[in-house]
Amino acid sequence: MTEQELLRLVGTIGEIDAPIMNQVRERWDSLTKPPHSLGKLEDVVVRLGGIQGSIEPSVSKRTVLCFAADHGVVAEGVSPSQQVVTAEMVRNFLDGGAAISVLSECCSCDLKVFNAGMVHQVEDSRIIQNPVSSGTGNMMREKAMTRDMTFQALSIGYNAAVREIDEGRNLLLCGEMGVGNTTSASAIYAAVTGIDPARITGTGAGLPPARVQHKVDVIRKALALHNPDPADPVAILCAVGGFELAAMCGVMLAGAVKSCAVMVDGFISGASALLAMLFHPRVKEYLIFSHQSGEEGYQEVCRHFAIDPLVNLNMCLGEGTGAVMVLPLIDNALSCYYKMATFAEAGVTEIDV
Amino acid sequence: MTEQELLRLVGTIGEIDAPIMNQVRERWDSLTKPPHSLGKLEDVVVRLGGIQGSIEPSVSKRTVLCFAADHGVVAEGVSPSQQVVTAEMVRNFLDGGAAISVLSECCSCDLKVFNAGMVHQVEDSRIIQNPVSSGTGNMMREKAMTRDMTFQALSIGYNAAVREIDEGRNLLLCGEMGVGNTTSASAIYAAVTGIDPARITGTGAGLPPARVQHKVDVIRKALALHNPDPADPVAILCAVGGFELAAMCGVMLAGAVKSCAVMVDGFISGASALLAMLFHPRVKEYLIFSHQSGEEGYQEVCRHFAIDPLVNLNMCLGEGTGAVMVLPLIDNALSCYYKMATFAEAGVTEIDV
Repeated sequence: MTEQELLRLVGTIGEIDAPIMNQVRERWDSLTKPPHSLGKLEDVVVRLGGIQGSIEPSVSKRTVLCFAADHGVVAEGVSPSQQVVTAEMVRNFLDGGAAISVLSECCSCDLKVFNAGMVHQVEDSRIIQNPVSSGTGNMMREKAMTRDMTFQALSIGYNAAVREIDEGRNLLLCGEMGVGNTTSASAIYAAVTGIDPARITGTGAGLPPARVQHKVDVIRKALALHNPDPADPVAILCAVGGFELAAMCGVMLAGAVKSCAVMVDGFISGASALLAMLFHPRVKEYLIFSHQSGEEGYQEVCRHFAIDPLVNLNMCLGEGTGAVMVLPLIDNALSCYYKMATFAEAGVTEIDV
Repeated sequence: MTEQELLRLVGTIGEIDAPIMNQVRERWDSLTKPPHSLGKLEDVVVRLGGIQGSIEPSVSKRTVLCFAADHGVVAEGVSPSQQVVTAEMVRNFLDGGAAISVLSECCSCDLKVFNAGMVHQVEDSRIIQNPVSSGTGNMMREKAMTRDMTFQALSIGYNAAVREIDEGRNLLLCGEMGVGNTTSASAIYAAVTGIDPARITGTGAGLPPARVQHKVDVIRKALALHNPDPADPVAILCAVGGFELAAMCGVMLAGAVKSCAVMVDGFISGASALLAMLFHPRVKEYLIFSHQSGEEGYQEVCRHFAIDPLVNLNMCLGEGTGAVMVLPLIDNALSCYYKMATFAEAGVTEIDV
């Protein structure tokens, strides 16, 4: 997909359906419980109604799209894992041993795994091979991606999401695997928000606290070198992004264009979400933020953008696990919405206020 | 059960199994994910191991025990609901139309409903009839319960829990239905913690904010009248408690005596939990706090007692819904614990720190 095509499609993103949302709220208030007493879960069902344009929303057909890619910046010693772990974990995803494999099976969620640009190859017919390149450039010395690469990576996610939606999926979830991608995500947060990298950079997947300062220094140098426009998501992706981060951003854009809700996982996909919201602010209405990451600074970002994730279980696993983990909560909420009795049906006296 | 018998049993509560918990932690750390990256859910599985004395904990057989009762204090206008709603909602529980009915079915949790002392009767063979009396006394004018009534109500819960555990249940959940019971719960919190009632009294199930001050005044007068010893759970229950609150406290005591985990719901069962912890501080180790109630002041109580509920979804429905809602999260965590591959099995390189 060309840059022009993608930007034209993003321009078509519409508002979600407010009258439908009011009807869903009315249904909630007719049920035998105190008003709004299912809290955030009522709100999610209201928004799903607005996104799907239906007072009978559903998330019965869902897929978690996991994009794997590598990051040149790991040469700077920002990760405790060797780069081969990206490929080893992708094989683990496919073989059913990873958390995302177990959770997607438990939660009746299809799992699709994409090679968006790994350094080490996984030859397996179950992986969808869409590599942009063999890892990104090292952001501390060069741009992570050219403009062409960035649109290629955005298109991987966009096209994958469109295929899923056209096949009848009503909820998409985002996941990733990429050694070094918390560095890219922290750099994106700092670039978009202007927050000091020291306040938005943490231990990622097990970096010793003593080495976090080095990770901060790398991010500072990369941002000083490229100085991307904080309002330009493409410039930020080129400078400090990653193939999997761009691909997830593409999924979110496609969800908004095609009126399909997209669940955001935690720290990494949250960075993709901020960029998607820079492409078009209405994208936010189509996103369901699942998990409040414990990674340094994420809470501040959430406050800044009025994002209120559903839960905070102190998870920091990535892969899309936070998003898949909370699926049963949404299933439970929808069951209440469809199966609870109204005050009239149950003969329960409404409150007297 | 006599007072002496119950206190003797409480004295037998033992510590949970620390060596088993270490073994469960070691298993978690061997799995292909960053250490402790499933956060609070890893901690729950560790504690279930310690409670059950097994490195293979299970919550496959679970029952939510719902106790319904009425409160004399509703004569003071502290609730927006009429007292008949307690019985109407109990019928709705049984007929499958209430949130707790829907959720317990979705989450494969048995639901048992007890009449612990309602004013209006529900004649139905599916309700377990254990009424202590026809509602409690009005705490603003007299003690809510005599000492005999309090032990009778504690025994309802204790005996119900023992029956479930003896039949092979490995997780119990607490729920309640009782118009006026947020007033009783707020009074218990104030009595135990010494917090000003104004800081721990909210709108309950839909009281208009303008009437909360009156509810606070009622609680203040009741506590001034009875002045219960803040360290004596029986005195507090007699003064400002309720049959369902005492019954849930009894479930928690039985869980600790018989080494079975008990899930605490939100604001109401949280008050029962504080009292159970006054009976014996070790009870806390057997409790899983499920939902951070949005009710005024609950967060302060949680901080005070180092209680960290799993989620905060802004739910305020009672019935046990918060506890049942999060069951799938624990199921998911156990699935990860049992089904994920170890680093050795998957051939994934461990992090290099």
